[in-house]
Amino acid sequence: MTTSRSGVSPVGMVNGYTLADRERQTAGTKAKLDRRAALLGPGYQLFYADPVEISHARDVHLYGPHGEEYLDAYNNVASVGHAHPAVAAAVSRQLSVVNTNTRYLQDGILEFSERLLATFPPELDRVTYTCTGSEANDLAVRIARQHTGGTGLIVTANAYHGVTATVAEFSPSLGPGNALGTHVRLVGAPGAGEPMRNQVRAAIADLARHGIKLCAFIADSVFSSDGVRTHPVPVLDGVADEVHAAGGLYIADEVQAGFGRTGEDWWGFRRHRVIPDLVTLGKPIGNGYPVSAVVLQERVGREFDRTVRYFNTFGGSTAAIAAAQAVWNVIEEQDLIRNARVVGAHLRSGLVDLAAESPFVSEIRGTGLFYGVEIVNPETAQPDGAHARDLVNALRHRHVLISASGPDGNVLKIRPPLTFRPEHVDRLLEALDLVLRAEWAR
Amino acid sequence: MTTSRSGVSPVGMVNGYTLADRERQTAGTKAKLDRRAALLGPGYQLFYADPVEISHARDVHLYGPHGEEYLDAYNNVASVGHAHPAVAAAVSRQLSVVNTNTRYLQDGILEFSERLLATFPPELDRVTYTCTGSEANDLAVRIARQHTGGTGLIVTANAYHGVTATVAEFSPSLGPGNALGTHVRLVGAPGAGEPMRNQVRAAIADLARHGIKLCAFIADSVFSSDGVRTHPVPVLDGVADEVHAAGGLYIADEVQAGFGRTGEDWWGFRRHRVIPDLVTLGKPIGNGYPVSAVVLQERVGREFDRTVRYFNTFGGSTAAIAAAQAVWNVIEEQDLIRNARVVGAHLRSGLVDLAAESPFVSEIRGTGLFYGVEIVNPETAQPDGAHARDLVNALRHRHVLISASGPDGNVLKIRPPLTFRPEHVDRLLEALDLVLRAEWAR
Repeated sequence: MTTSRSGVSPVGMVNGYTLADRERQTAGTKAKLDRRAALLGPGYQLFYADPVEISHARDVHLYGPHGEEYLDAYNNVASVGHAHPAVAAAVSRQLSVVNTNTRYLQDGILEFSERLLATFPPELDRVTYTCTGSEANDLAVRIARQHTGGTGLIVTANAYHGVTATVAEFSPSLGPGNALGTHVRLVGAPGAGEPMRNQVRAAIADLARHGIKLCAFIADSVFSSDGVRTHPVPVLDGVADEVHAAGGLYIADEVQAGFGRTGEDWWGFRRHRVIPDLVTLGKPIGNGYPVSAVVLQERVGREFDRTVRYFNTFGGSTAAIAAAQAVWNVIEEQDLIRNARVVGAHLRSGLVDLAAESPFVSEIRGTGLFYGVEIVNPETAQPDGAHARDLVNALRHRHVLISASGPDGNVLKIRPPLTFRPEHVDRLLEALDLVLRAEWAR
Repeated sequence: MTTSRSGVSPVGMVNGYTLADRERQTAGTKAKLDRRAALLGPGYQLFYADPVEISHARDVHLYGPHGEEYLDAYNNVASVGHAHPAVAAAVSRQLSVVNTNTRYLQDGILEFSERLLATFPPELDRVTYTCTGSEANDLAVRIARQHTGGTGLIVTANAYHGVTATVAEFSPSLGPGNALGTHVRLVGAPGAGEPMRNQVRAAIADLARHGIKLCAFIADSVFSSDGVRTHPVPVLDGVADEVHAAGGLYIADEVQAGFGRTGEDWWGFRRHRVIPDLVTLGKPIGNGYPVSAVVLQERVGREFDRTVRYFNTFGGSTAAIAAAQAVWNVIEEQDLIRNARVVGAHLRSGLVDLAAESPFVSEIRGTGLFYGVEIVNPETAQPDGAHARDLVNALRHRHVLISASGPDGNVLKIRPPLTFRPEHVDRLLEALDLVLRAEWAR
């Protein structure tokens, strides 16, 4: 596997283990790595140059087989905390009663759907359940194609929306080996260069120039893989106006931003004062139980409903809904949106202080409990992906888990469970301070 | 929604509830149907003209809210029986310990993968986990495209492989409203007309004539949606030879046929003496917990591995593997492959007896615990989908649940959990005998 100048493998994720890291592993780890390589199919990668072995977890901590404790400042799937007892109990109970599909009448799906839809603008009045974020984005695009009769898609330059064949075609962050569709156009994420609205207008014109009718604009509401581009707001309202004027639909991908992550609302698109036509949900919805969903305006789904049937065997099954209900209860009962806001503000303030002291940190972006820390070369002020990767690995050795993102892989990505507390922030900041200083001294 | 001559809606499934059925429902059911219509997105359909409400389930029985007991002769997801205590316990335990992704080293996935791969021909030596059968087929095709450089796909005339945008393009059973890809060619399922091998050769030639390089042939090893075409065997070995000679890959879709359903082996492709390049697994693998997988030959995945990364957040996560391990244990401990063979033989023999006595039944097809009962008009000997639908609904009123399939919707589909016992067969046969006679008398 070759590595680009910035330290980002053209195929791999930013901070993955590579075969070059094998030699220094213990005999026991080597044996597991080799078994893995001999068993698992193409594309599998492990986090960190020195992979982390996990045997159990609780709340914001992951534990290795010898009891090693890691502070989890990265996993947004277990967003109400790892192994949350209320979620485990709800799923366990349901699995002992019945777990079947949506072709039978069941009450749970109705109750959860009412609760879910009540948090959306009233125009967004229907929900269809799928199993993964990829499936949700795939279905949203199928529905949008049927409604618009168009195929053209506009996404941000380093967007990630999933791994089905169709969704990978509009996920440029998967790298140059993954071909984008000829019907896909890229625009810059908010915060730099030409206003996004203008870029979208130009992309629509370019699609038309190639005889491609617009289907949809789709964006992660916090632009995670573009390096956490949460500001300025609102930006996406103007984008939606352009898209609608051209007959396209606005799809808000809330797989990263949803379920309170931003600390302001259940949904990240709210910050942009936009009313999407379709919204996709994933990762944290079942705290690890596979659930995802497409929330949409009824009028947008009408043509799909008329011409295409859709059935997802596991989507919205009884246990999936039980998991989602339990997670929702925890978010409300533990007031986790507020926690994301309050603890997030503490985290942001600490990161801003670190940035002021470190020549390597050029910018802090983010909101709620999702931050991006831009790492640059102090001499050139250019993105420094290799340094970011080193920092991620140094933190891992201090048992603090984060990752990195962005087109240059130079943005530290901090995205802990929403149950993070001030003492966890302090531990994270202390470790980050140390590794930033150690690098300074090297 | 219009209905075709054969009684099959062009959009809907064979025996779905339609709005025309609403009036005769109870007030309570109407209220639930209306809530459902007002909440759920496009494409949702319920089984049966009079939908079945489910509140709990155990083994081969589903139960309504007032304790009504239904014999489940249809669900192959809960293939070790509904709410199996060992599976529920294994998942519950895992959810209380940790449920995280494959980017951390974990033992469970290695242990299960070894066990799984040991049941395949030695050439099939790698596995990648996904969440749904659709995702597995989607990934298999992505990998096949990368390996072959081709896009052409050959499937059977009424094939169903899933609901991602890419997979729907080669799932003709989704109906005329769902456009097939221009790179897709159809051939007849085994058992009638021109030998399949010759049809595949012609399809390859037609693809070439249109400048389309062959990617893969993909088939459900029991041709479920084509009307359960389990015989003759072997047929697919010759098909694989044609496909390989043209540089394409053979993908065995085992979502229906896998995990002992045929009563002969873990995998349905074995009956055809074929060694697939890729195999896809789904539905019964986790007894309802969302898990699926692609098993493949290492050489076939090499190009994908070199150029494309793949990560499925929930795919192969700790709880998914725990579910799959528990299901595997039950299949072995309860000797369910043998049970499918023995109880299936009893079922087959009873169906053959019924066929001999009923002018409506022209043929019994199937193997293990998967049977198709062909319903025809006695006067014309033509497929009678409307009668099949009536029979399915009449059985539902006798609290026996089956469905129908095939291009004309006239093939009763009997596919119970693998824990079906002789007394369940007898109850099913008795009910089927009664509804067949009632129809005769009308």
